[in-house]
Amino acid sequence: MNNRGSRFGPGAEFDLITRLHDFDSSLPPGVSLGPGDDAAVLEGGWVVSTDLCVEDVHFRREWITDQEVGYRAATAALSDMAAMAAVPVGLLVSIAGQREGAFDLEQVQAGIADAAVKVGASVIGGDISASPGPLMVDVVALGKSTSPVRRDGAKSGGEVWVTGSLGSSAAAVRVWRDGGTPTEALRSAFATPAARVNEALYIAKDLFAHAMIDISDGLIGDAGHIAASSGVKITLSALDIPVGRAAIDHFGRTEALRDALAGGEDYELCFVTAPGIVDPLHFLDRYGVTVTKVGSVSEGEGVWLKEEDGTLSGVVRGGFDHWAVEDRVTEREG
Amino acid sequence: MNNRGSRFGPGAEFDLITRLHDFDSSLPPGVSLGPGDDAAVLEGGWVVSTDLCVEDVHFRREWITDQEVGYRAATAALSDMAAMAAVPVGLLVSIAGQREGAFDLEQVQAGIADAAVKVGASVIGGDISASPGPLMVDVVALGKSTSPVRRDGAKSGGEVWVTGSLGSSAAAVRVWRDGGTPTEALRSAFATPAARVNEALYIAKDLFAHAMIDISDGLIGDAGHIAASSGVKITLSALDIPVGRAAIDHFGRTEALRDALAGGEDYELCFVTAPGIVDPLHFLDRYGVTVTKVGSVSEGEGVWLKEEDGTLSGVVRGGFDHWAVEDRVTEREG
Repeated sequence: MNNRGSRFGPGAEFDLITRLHDFDSSLPPGVSLGPGDDAAVLEGGWVVSTDLCVEDVHFRREWITDQEVGYRAATAALSDMAAMAAVPVGLLVSIAGQREGAFDLEQVQAGIADAAVKVGASVIGGDISASPGPLMVDVVALGKSTSPVRRDGAKSGGEVWVTGSLGSSAAAVRVWRDGGTPTEALRSAFATPAARVNEALYIAKDLFAHAMIDISDGLIGDAGHIAASSGVKITLSALDIPVGRAAIDHFGRTEALRDALAGGEDYELCFVTAPGIVDPLHFLDRYGVTVTKVGSVSEGEGVWLKEEDGTLSGVVRGGFDHWAVEDRVTEREG
Repeated sequence: MNNRGSRFGPGAEFDLITRLHDFDSSLPPGVSLGPGDDAAVLEGGWVVSTDLCVEDVHFRREWITDQEVGYRAATAALSDMAAMAAVPVGLLVSIAGQREGAFDLEQVQAGIADAAVKVGASVIGGDISASPGPLMVDVVALGKSTSPVRRDGAKSGGEVWVTGSLGSSAAAVRVWRDGGTPTEALRSAFATPAARVNEALYIAKDLFAHAMIDISDGLIGDAGHIAASSGVKITLSALDIPVGRAAIDHFGRTEALRDALAGGEDYELCFVTAPGIVDPLHFLDRYGVTVTKVGSVSEGEGVWLKEEDGTLSGVVRGGFDHWAVEDRVTEREG
């Protein structure tokens, strides 16, 4: 349930979701949150989300093994559970692909099961089909949450944090696209990302997160979703972004920062808390994962980036395409 | 969650489900029914199922409109809800397809929304992706049921019934494949099938159905699922099968009967009740849909067909491929 690979046109999935909303202007009984967040929330505390991975759009077969295709697809869906602070319970898996030896179905399944087991979930159903086209894996994740964290709770004065480091997954893709072979650290960031499920539960419960999202579209895009849903302005500080070491080693900090801000599929968490609550050392000690303050919430709208030279850039509508290509307004700070 | 189009090899989806079961030998907490039935049942009465439709496997673009592609895909998933006697609540829809005018996304969505609205459900989320391959629609249906009807409750002495008529959808496909144009009646059986949601609720509640399934694999195959899950033998009477009038008109009764027995995607219901409970006239009056007794349940295993000439054929393992091609044993009755 994100924009990854939605290349029908800029913002196409957002448009789709909006239009689906038009068809169904009120949510059905028993559904408390519909299109537009990381997942739908059902009566009884069930949280459900779907995530689609398509060969040659989200991955190439030459890049990763069939086992990793399954692992990644499942992690993408499980990461949506994390983003809602839900405990993953089960996956429904739909797989379509060519019938004759084009891929190893059992390996894809093994990867899915592996990712599920890592967070205590199981595969509980699914569908398969032959297809004359690319390998396609659609994973529906079902989880439970007593108090799901949404995107729309960020408040002025809040701090913006991210788990782990960003940009290595996008950097791996760039290396592959340039015909190279990424280092193992870059490769594994793309091939075997982690869904931050336990971290998310702690962030929700012990850090009282106001809003949370998983970083699948890139930090600017996903912070933009929080800003838009919450009706606030988020200012990110480029100097503070935890850019992946492997990405810096390969591309240098300037280029790697760009991947950290605008590249997707890191599956880290971006969350907003009241000031002074997060203890990064305690977090690292507890989960073996860093957590870094990257920005702040104020009144206003959109995502703004304080660049390393002090320039303040307003990302008008949020999202990769706009930051990178268009709709970017720049003003001198102070 | 059925075998339609599972052409990785005979029975491939069954094998997949079995293997997924191996990965996850016990169901997770809160899940009371996993792979192998029409849907998974979650704590709190939620029922969830997924159904995958792939261009050139489940349909061809020349056959039906984009609106009908969406309608059919949604109906297939909603029919799984009916099979469990669940009230459909919401759909999550994943769509992959080529980006440039190869299909009309809005029309696909409109068809999905149309099918959902007809049974009181809404689209509550989803994902989309570009794809270099065929149009693919994966629909997850979520519904609620106070007492889901499973496949495994058929008892010796029970009657086997089906709603509506069978074979017209498969007949339409045969006409198209032969290069012809099906009549409107045949075409609509394929393009705009109905999910028998209200009928299913009545069958479960007022007819105390022991077991129920939607006919997506063909009557023999789906009756075979009931027989296998329930540990019983089902004997179908060829003379009593409600073969679609449009299919008979086009192919004659003998060929049309074959489509009725072995063709799939009618999305009618097959259910088992205690003897003497069903009143077909009342059913017709109430729903405008016929209901026909097609067989009986006894001790033993497998599906047996009493043919029109009195021959009794045992369908050893159940399912289209086996009945049509192999594993068919024939014995003279009496």
